[in-house]
Amino acid sequence: MLLGRVTGTVVASQKEPLMDGLTFLVVRQLGVDNSETGSYVVAVDSVGAGVGEVVMYASGSSARQTTVTRDRPCDAVIMAIVDTWEIDGETVYEK
Amino acid sequence: MLLGRVTGTVVASQKEPLMDGLTFLVVRQLGVDNSETGSYVVAVDSVGAGVGEVVMYASGSSARQTTVTRDRPCDAVIMAIVDTWEIDGETVYEK
Amino acid sequence: MLLGRVTGTVVASQKEPLMDGLTFLVVRQLGVDNSETGSYVVAVDSVGAGVGEVVMYASGSSARQTTVTRDRPCDAVIMAIVDTWEIDGETVYEK
Amino acid sequence: MLLGRVTGTVVASQKEPLMDGLTFLVVRQLGVDNSETGSYVVAVDSVGAGVGEVVMYASGSSARQTTVTRDRPCDAVIMAIVDTWEIDGETVYEK
Amino acid sequence: MLLGRVTGTVVASQKEPLMDGLTFLVVRQLGVDNSETGSYVVAVDSVGAGVGEVVMYASGSSARQTTVTRDRPCDAVIMAIVDTWEIDGETVYEK
Repeated sequence: MLLGRVTGTVVASQKEPLMDGLTFLVVRQLGVDNSETGSYVVAVDSVGAGVGEVVMYASGSSARQTTVTRDRPCDAVIMAIVDTWEIDGETVYEK
Repeated sequence: MLLGRVTGTVVASQKEPLMDGLTFLVVRQLGVDNSETGSYVVAVDSVGAGVGEVVMYASGSSARQTTVTRDRPCDAVIMAIVDTWEIDGETVYEK
Repeated sequence: MLLGRVTGTVVASQKEPLMDGLTFLVVRQLGVDNSETGSYVVAVDSVGAGVGEVVMYASGSSARQTTVTRDRPCDAVIMAIVDTWEIDGETVYEK
Repeated sequence: MLLGRVTGTVVASQKEPLMDGLTFLVVRQLGVDNSETGSYVVAVDSVGAGVGEVVMYASGSSARQTTVTRDRPCDAVIMAIVDTWEIDGETVYEK
Repeated sequence: MLLGRVTGTVVASQKEPLMDGLTFLVVRQLGVDNSETGSYVVAVDSVGAGVGEVVMYASGSSARQTTVTRDRPCDAVIMAIVDTWEIDGETVYEK
């Protein structure tokens, strides 16, 4: 998984019917020091994440292992909202 | 998923029979600011996308989770046409 | 899928028995402008491609969705020989 | 698999229920010379690894092939704690 | 698949039980000109490869399609020892 910050939303009315009802969030990837790396992904939300929140997301086939994404053409899913992370004993981020 | 702009088409008459009848579109990857990143992919279309349109595409095994791509040697599929996306509350792209 | 040019062959007599009889081709990745990107992959041929030809190849689990590669330890397959591709209405490559 | 050093932990109380009870560790990727590469991943622990330890981790669907991660939205798993590795006959790392 | 040279070994006594008995080899990725690219992977050996040998390896779920790696948390496997490869009609490497 990677750490990211939800920074936006994508609206797409014309889509593969299996994606109906899903929420597409733009997630900017974070480094372990909580800085933005410049990469992003559009991930389906499975945990009620909102813009501004720090999350973990899974990619590839693992992104289809949630109730909302199973058997759907989805390659990235937000599967957790991060409370805190520590590096070398120091708190880098706290919600 | 990633955001991209459809910029071209690929024609290939001699191909794995499982790919017969599919449309191959050249998709340039877009950054969250709607600029081109320099990367591209050839994706199968599952939503009737045309050249010039902004789309979302899924990669890897997730690209086989649509009716047209199931069980086929396809690793990228356009699964949505984008209407709009917002970053930090501002509209970056509108169809 | 990505575009590539077949530029060579690999011979390997000592191999996983499931790979017996397959043809291994060195494929240099092409950009959308038909220039070489510097990346390559060794792909199994499923369409009778030869050295010099421009092809499309699929990667990952999708590379196992052809008759010759099914259930084999193969992560890249040539699944089409390209006739032509167009970008922004102009022909970039013609066989 | 890749080599990495466990350098931190992630706490996430609001998550996909399938991830309940799993330990999320921040793993910095190591080069073969035991230097940090700058990349990281958040991996689920399946072997009792702790902060400071050098580990091997598997990514993608292979990360779901352990008892603790099977059928879960997990794309990286620590599947071994490294005792030692050698390059060109010289020991690079010893626990 | 990619080309690589086996340059080392990894020993890990504490590991996911499914990995017991497997050999972990450090493989440096080679470019098509037989130079090292700077990337590496730790791959499970399925063909009796030794340090110094040039090999092909498969990544991702395809790495689980050999007898020794099936259903195990393994994302890279050496599936062939290379005898020779040719680029543009010239032999680049010969065992």
